[in-house]
Order: sequence, then structure tokens, then C-alpha cells
Amino acid sequence: MRKVYVAGGACTKYIGKFHPDFVWKRHPDFGKRENPDLQDYVRDAAIEALVDTHTTAAQVDKAFVGNFAGELFDNQGHLGASLAAADPDLAGKPIARLEGACASGGLAFAAGIDAIRAGADVVLVVGAEVQTTVSARDGANFLARAADYKRQRPIDEFTFPALFARRAKALTERTEATMEDFARASVKAYANAGRNPLAHMHAHKMTLEQASTVSDSNPTFLNNEELKPFLRVSDCSQVSDGGTALVLCSADGVARLGRKLADCSEVLACEVSTAALSADPSPLALDNSASAAKRAYAKAGVTAKEMQVAEVHDCFTVTEILMYEALGFADTGRGATLLREGATAIDGAIPVNTGGGLVGFGHPVGATGVKQVLELHRQFHSMCGDYQVGGDPTLGIAANMGGDDRTAVVTILRSAS
Amino acid sequence: MRKVYVAGGACTKYIGKFHPDFVWKRHPDFGKRENPDLQDYVRDAAIEALVDTHTTAAQVDKAFVGNFAGELFDNQGHLGASLAAADPDLAGKPIARLEGACASGGLAFAAGIDAIRAGADVVLVVGAEVQTTVSARDGANFLARAADYKRQRPIDEFTFPALFARRAKALTERTEATMEDFARASVKAYANAGRNPLAHMHAHKMTLEQASTVSDSNPTFLNNEELKPFLRVSDCSQVSDGGTALVLCSADGVARLGRKLADCSEVLACEVSTAALSADPSPLALDNSASAAKRAYAKAGVTAKEMQVAEVHDCFTVTEILMYEALGFADTGRGATLLREGATAIDGAIPVNTGGGLVGFGHPVGATGVKQVLELHRQFHSMCGDYQVGGDPTLGIAANMGGDDRTAVVTILRSAS
Repeated sequence: MRKVYVAGGACTKYIGKFHPDFVWKRHPDFGKRENPDLQDYVRDAAIEALVDTHTTAAQVDKAFVGNFAGELFDNQGHLGASLAAADPDLAGKPIARLEGACASGGLAFAAGIDAIRAGADVVLVVGAEVQTTVSARDGANFLARAADYKRQRPIDEFTFPALFARRAKALTERTEATMEDFARASVKAYANAGRNPLAHMHAHKMTLEQASTVSDSNPTFLNNEELKPFLRVSDCSQVSDGGTALVLCSADGVARLGRKLADCSEVLACEVSTAALSADPSPLALDNSASAAKRAYAKAGVTAKEMQVAEVHDCFTVTEILMYEALGFADTGRGATLLREGATAIDGAIPVNTGGGLVGFGHPVGATGVKQVLELHRQFHSMCGDYQVGGDPTLGIAANMGGDDRTAVVTILRSAS
Repeated sequence: MRKVYVAGGACTKYIGKFHPDFVWKRHPDFGKRENPDLQDYVRDAAIEALVDTHTTAAQVDKAFVGNFAGELFDNQGHLGASLAAADPDLAGKPIARLEGACASGGLAFAAGIDAIRAGADVVLVVGAEVQTTVSARDGANFLARAADYKRQRPIDEFTFPALFARRAKALTERTEATMEDFARASVKAYANAGRNPLAHMHAHKMTLEQASTVSDSNPTFLNNEELKPFLRVSDCSQVSDGGTALVLCSADGVARLGRKLADCSEVLACEVSTAALSADPSPLALDNSASAAKRAYAKAGVTAKEMQVAEVHDCFTVTEILMYEALGFADTGRGATLLREGATAIDGAIPVNTGGGLVGFGHPVGATGVKQVLELHRQFHSMCGDYQVGGDPTLGIAANMGGDDRTAVVTILRSAS
């Protein structure tokens, strides 16, 4: 099996509502300029990743784009051909778009790994999404295409928030987790984002009191009265626009680019597990993600205890706590305690979502799985500035999830230095 | 490089307007049953392909789904998780959905090849699309997401028909091709479909007079007056629902399934070429498809003259003629002559689209690239019934195309017997 390396990558700012760069009706640039569109993010992330890794477009053997719903949010599909437009030398390359709901980026990364194992030496992986073009209500309907639409759309106008409120309700009723614990996850996310200049919520503060209290600025919003109390706006990931890209290489590819292995990260495992869209998972666990993680640990020959940094899919705060358990950082039902004890803070034993995660950094859907891997790579190579983890981490894990734990992509990465 | 084999596959009926199974307001079953939805086609094609190849779901290592626009036509994305629901033993497998406009199926097939070269032994590739849920007008808008939407959508309400009418106009003005030649392509497609019980247009007749004449039953329909005369309904591929699936194997996989190599087909080459969405190609050639074909011939070590059967992407009749040239069956500007001489008929020197192609068999977008490969495999193994080519063909080529020649997937297949 050929080894696969992350040579580097790049990430655009993630922006949307509350971000100072985001143009909306009260922005001074309103009417003067438009926000970047999906094709802009595909191009910008790709070009920046090539620059970051000193790669010319001609050196790329294959490329993949992760995107969930460009056809809906920006009337644009066929993003492989969009990426081919990013540089004249990308034209003619084999490029494909991958979709697996919020795991679209993870699937693009996994396709890149297959391509290298199949013989390619240099692979460009781009993830991008634009979501701010429609109202939150319309966006929630678009995102519901990641669920079993006919069956699950009637649950609530905000389908996915309701599916995860169901989990939050179950956890508070049947484990030690409380709504305050979910608020703690939010506070950590915003605090980390405050150290990350690329984060959507970089300039936005969140105190434990704010996140714990239902208020005009932090309302509950579900229509389903039974589920409504279990999800506040502060528990949700952001509706963001953005793009992230990685350059993956074989050992020969690293040499072709004139890079040093010491500046790269090695993919020890990348396991994809897909659960049936027609099935309702237990609300108390992310069993499909746990299954992917178990396989990834086995393939990499490492254990959860050895992880030094992690990126997990916190589409909602409850998801982060369940991810701690799925990845083996905490026993079943004990995820909230791990968070409460501070173990997952930047200076904790296993820092999680150091750049702010989906709640703080933002969640341009197709970009997220790509960004998670880039974040681990950056932590290994001391590139995280104000949110750099101490102790020179060299081993980490990323868990990207699509739908209600229906597609899981778990990656274990090690510094090649 | 590991060898990749097609072990077999299956195809649902392709149905839509004019097909007797298709439920619409004048159908006797109207109000009693609904047409199958996208998830039905994904499941049915997958299960039938497993049955055809005596493969259990547990034996599948990885799977891929090709689909263009499920989010739009059927409110359903995340089709990897949909496929995982097709059989309890598919749950937990790595599955991803690939999109590249009308080449989505070809890209899913290409991903399957990478997966086998990367180490998988048994890979399931499914292509499916449902398009009959909306009006032709709304459908044309959905399909325009395969173009550079902001720039090209204003061309015509029927964006893609207009883009290919532009090619038909250029050909009739600057080469020997005539509107009657395009009609001949249509007549061939319907005639072949008449021999194919799975074809959308199986029961529909088309004479040269009907296809050549603009009439109430064969109108022109573009709004753009300059382009309007160059495209009739008979020149268009069908708006179809359907699914097709293949089982791909390594040599070890063929043995694992207890299959004989002699019943399989070997993939000699599968080349993907992606052109920039922002560029306008020459109307007189499919340069991107030609580039993919050139690379495929070189990798396979064969020439155009050796091809015994072909499947080409005839989204419109003019595309078929241009494909003859792109694949090297005819010199530049001479594709129409090849057709006129009957060389591409079932009993011709190089039979093309023997089951009816996109115009006759139908064009459930994401299924098409998968179906093309299955058709070659079936021709090699004498499985084509009334449209079986004589002379026991053993070598063929398939060309699947997305957008206006923006993504091309060219596959060269040889009987392994």
C-alpha cells in the first residue's frame, strides 16, 4: 500500500452573518460588491493551496471537489469543471465532485487517498460551500436533502436541528449531560474561534451565561414543542461560506514538488462508514462514526489514548459530546464530563476543535471535512498561531459526519517529521 | 497496476413520457400508484447487479453512486447513505456519490476503478436519476446547473438544447452535415431502441420523414430565433428515470465471487478529462472528449480502427456525429458521412449505441455513464438479444460527457474471454 501524505493546504476566511466581511443590507458595501460565490471559493482555496505547497497546476495528477448542495444554494453543479477553470494548467486533468451531505469534504479527501494508492502522485482536494444566498428557513429545507427527505422532512421545518435536539433531549434525560454542558461546548467553540482569524465567529463573544440562557439573542426556534427546549441558536454550527483545499502526495509526489517529508503529515488511516438513510440511529450514540473510528484505529495501529489533538464534527454542541464517546476519548455517557473537566480545551489533555469547530470556525458544508485534516496538519507543524496547542503534537484524528451519523469519515494523521 | 474487471451488472427499465409503464394523468394507474423514486432506482439497480453477478452485499468492499441532481428533481441528496439502505449488509461500507453533470455515472465508474487499483477487490457502481417529477421547463433550469449557470443560463430557457443547437448550426454551415443527417441519427436511435425492451422509446417509431420534418409532433422549441431551426424534439435525448449498476472486481475479486474471467470484461483504460466551465468550446468539435479518447487509446495500446462496438454520449443527435470524430471513427467534419453510409448501424463496421443511446434508450442522467459500460459488456458476452451485434465483438469504447464537453470519461473495454 502506497503511503499518502498531506503536503499542505489553505483555507479561505469562513464568513456569513455576524462576520464583518459579509455583505448584507446593513453592510457599508451593500450594493457595491457581492459576496464571493461558490466558484470563487473553489478557485481561491485551490490556488492558495497550490501556492502554499509550491505546487504548479501542471504538477497535479488528479483533483476532487467536496460540495453538498451547490445546485441549490448557488444554482451551480458540475464543480469539477469549475475547478478546471481555476488555472489553465488544470484543464484536461481528471476532476470529480464528491457528495455525502456534511461529509462531502471527507469523501473528497478519501477519494484523493484512493487516487494516490491507485498510482497518482499529486492530488488536489478542494472543499467548498456557499449557504448565505437564501433564508435560514429555505436553507434548512435544502439541508434536509441530506436526510431521508420524504420520511424525515415533516419532523420539523428545521429538520436537522430537530434530529439533533432529539439527541440532546435523550442525553439530558438518560445520561449525566445537561443543557449547561452543551452551553460549555459552545463557549469553548467561540473562545477558540476568537483566536482564529479565519473563523466565522472570530469577533463574536459567547459567555457561559449567554449560551445557557434562552433569550432574544439566543432563542430556541424549533416548531416541535417537545424538542424545542433542547436546542438554542448557540448550540448550532454556523451557516457559512468558504473553501479549503489540500495537496496530497505519494512519497514520489513529495519529492516531485521539492518538499521535505518533515513538512508533511502522513495519513495512517482514512475509514469511511455509511449507514442506511432509512434507519433511525440510537439518539444516545454515534454508532456509525464509532465504527469508522474503530476501524481507523485498527488500521493505523494506534489507540484513542495516544491522540494528541482532534477535529470532530460539531454540527451541534451535542454532536461534539457524542463524538468524544465515538472516538473513545470518553466512555459511553461520559462525554459531557470530559468537556466539563476541560480535557478538550486547547490546554487540555486532548484538545478538540482548536480553531473553533463548526460552531465557531464555521461550517461551509463541503469544506468542513477538508478543513479538519488541514487543522491537524497545521497543529503538527506549529502553524496555528494563537490557537497552537502546546507540546508539539504529532498524532491526531478527524471525524467528519454526514446527516444524522449516516456517512462517517475518520482520518488518523501523523506528523511525518 | 492491478487489472480491473467488469463482472456484470443490471439495468432497470428506463421510463418517462411515452413509455407505457410511466404513470401520468392519462395512465390507468394514475392516482393508484406512483412512479419509482430516486431511492427506488438506486436500490433496484444495485440489488439486480448483485443478483446478476452472484455477489452478496457482504462481499462488496466499496460502492459509488453516480447522480447529477437528485437534490433538485427528487429533493434527495446523500445517495451513498441511500445505497447503504439497499441491503443490511451494505451498511457500514464506504460509499460515496459522484457528480459531474451528465458524466456523473462515468465518474462513479472511474472512482470504482481507482478503488480497485487502491486495493479493493469487489466494488459496486450504481448510477441513477429521476427527472420526470417536474415540467420540461423546470427540468431545463435544473439541468442548466451543469453549465456555467450565471453566464450561460440567460442563453435560452432551454440552456443545453441551445448550446447544442449552436453546434448543429455550425456543423450545417461549415461541414457537410445537414439537418437530415441529424434526423438519421434519431432514426437509428429509435430503431435500435425498438429492439431493446429496457429502452424508454422501445414502443415509439421514428421515420426519417418524421425526424426530418418540423411538425406539431416534432416541433422546434428554442426561444432563440437564430438557433431555433437547428434543434427538433427528435434530436433530443429523453427525460428519463432509471438506474444501472455494475460490479467491478480485481482478479482476486473475480475469484472471490466464484466467477470465471471468461464471463468478465477487462478495463483497458478509463480516462477522465475536465475542461473549464468558464470556457466556450469550438462548436465544431468535442475537443475535451477527443483528448480523453486519445489518452485512453494510448493507455490501452489500441487504435480507433480496432473498435468493434461503441457507446457514445448522444445528448443530442449532433453530439453523436461529433463523437464519431472525437473517437477517431471519422475524420474532422466527416462524422455525418459515416452515419449516412450506415457504418454505425447495428450491422455496420462500427456499431454505435446499439441499444438506442440517450435518444432511444433514454438518459436518466447519472445512470448513463454506467449503462454505457454495461452495454459494451453485454455485447461482448452475447447478452443483447435483438440488438446483439454480429461477429462476436471483443473490444469497444464508451464516451460519457458532462455539460458542453466539460467532463469526458472515455473507457476502453475488452472481453476477458
